Amino acid sequence: MAKKEEEVKLLGFWGSPFSRRVEMALKLKGVPYEYLEQDIVNKSPLLLQLNPVYKKVPVLVHNGKVLCESHLILEYIDQTWKNNPIFPQDPYEKAMAFFWAKVIDEQVGPVGLISVVKAEKGIEVAIKEARELIMFLEKEVTGKYFFGGEKIGFLDMVAGSMIPFCIARGWEGIGVDMIPKEIFPELNKWIKKLEEVEAVRECIPNREKQIEHMMKIVEQFKSA
Amino acid sequence: MAKKEEEVKLLGFWGSPFSRRVEMALKLKGVPYEYLEQDIVNKSPLLLQLNPVYKKVPVLVHNGKVLCESHLILEYIDQTWKNNPIFPQDPYEKAMAFFWAKVIDEQVGPVGLISVVKAEKGIEVAIKEARELIMFLEKEVTGKYFFGGEKIGFLDMVAGSMIPFCIARGWEGIGVDMIPKEIFPELNKWIKKLEEVEAVRECIPNREKQIEHMMKIVEQFKSA
Repeated sequence: MAKKEEEVKLLGFWGSPFSRRVEMALKLKGVPYEYLEQDIVNKSPLLLQLNPVYKKVPVLVHNGKVLCESHLILEYIDQTWKNNPIFPQDPYEKAMAFFWAKVIDEQVGPVGLISVVKAEKGIEVAIKEARELIMFLEKEVTGKYFFGGEKIGFLDMVAGSMIPFCIARGWEGIGVDMIPKEIFPELNKWIKKLEEVEAVRECIPNREKQIEHMMKIVEQFKSA
Repeated sequence: MAKKEEEVKLLGFWGSPFSRRVEMALKLKGVPYEYLEQDIVNKSPLLLQLNPVYKKVPVLVHNGKVLCESHLILEYIDQTWKNNPIFPQDPYEKAMAFFWAKVIDEQVGPVGLISVVKAEKGIEVAIKEARELIMFLEKEVTGKYFFGGEKIGFLDMVAGSMIPFCIARGWEGIGVDMIPKEIFPELNKWIKKLEEVEAVRECIPNREKQIEHMMKIVEQFKSA
């Protein structure tokens, strides 16, 4: 029996690591979806209606059900389309994947970039602190192809969309190579492996366009 | 065959909604645990060692496995001890429970209290905005005993530990009844139901001691 036609819509923004990772998961699972690019400055009535609390992308609509927040959306996707699982089965490993995802999104990414841009404690100190956090990830991925093990998983999508394909381009734009091969050999191997995955490659934003976008964000940090 | 002796340790702080909710879950499931009260100002070497990224309670140690962050700990507890389930089985309902938990911990609780204390836009505006967020919860619980349905669940523990038994006492301390019965009849019924659950009742901090503690936090907000 043919599967009933499913409605899958994603409200996203090309430069957002949060919606890019949702696209990675949908592509990896081969779920067709309608993509609705959003203006993150002049927010659409649809976005405001679907996510009235945070008013942010990504928003996934699946057969009328509305989901917000990328970690939750990724878990929902994994439980709804069971092929190519992206979460560990073991409860402890799953909790740890969520934990590191939180650290990446809350600390390594935004805090790291802001502190380097503001350089209130001196840029060298800010870089050192950001690298201390990134070193947790270096250790986590050591001896594995991906954070998820042999195959790409949840934490790869979260870390990949946020660090190499987003925040690192902000650091690059202000002249800082934050993740040099000499200091982070394992993370650099991991980035190469990530780029070999088609579902990821299709979700890497255009480099020049993204550096330009990140420089706008950097200017906002400076003046904040 | 007798179950192998399990090691369950919880590093917590009596006034923290984050560790109180973990205690609620352990008590509800009847899991014996060793409780290690922490000094949140002068942090213990054990806390710094177990949670080097956030350096915060709660930390759960289960047979040598270390877990941080209350939402993740609650999910781990639910998957490890299966009696009295606290999460919905349906993936969408589970995602929504996590979503509201995030809103409560990030927006309704801290942001609501800070904005009322600071009253930068006028206290009436701040109260109105906080109540708009609380109104989402009023709607969520309407027609149910608990957020989880007929029985207490994850979202009840998150919302209960954060709103009535923590932040509301901060508002009370500065003379604001934020959740009056006339505006939030359903939430007030829910609070009464919560207090009937023994596992919750045992985790409600002493009223006077907590108001005093919240007033210290309020003073920090004022001077920040």
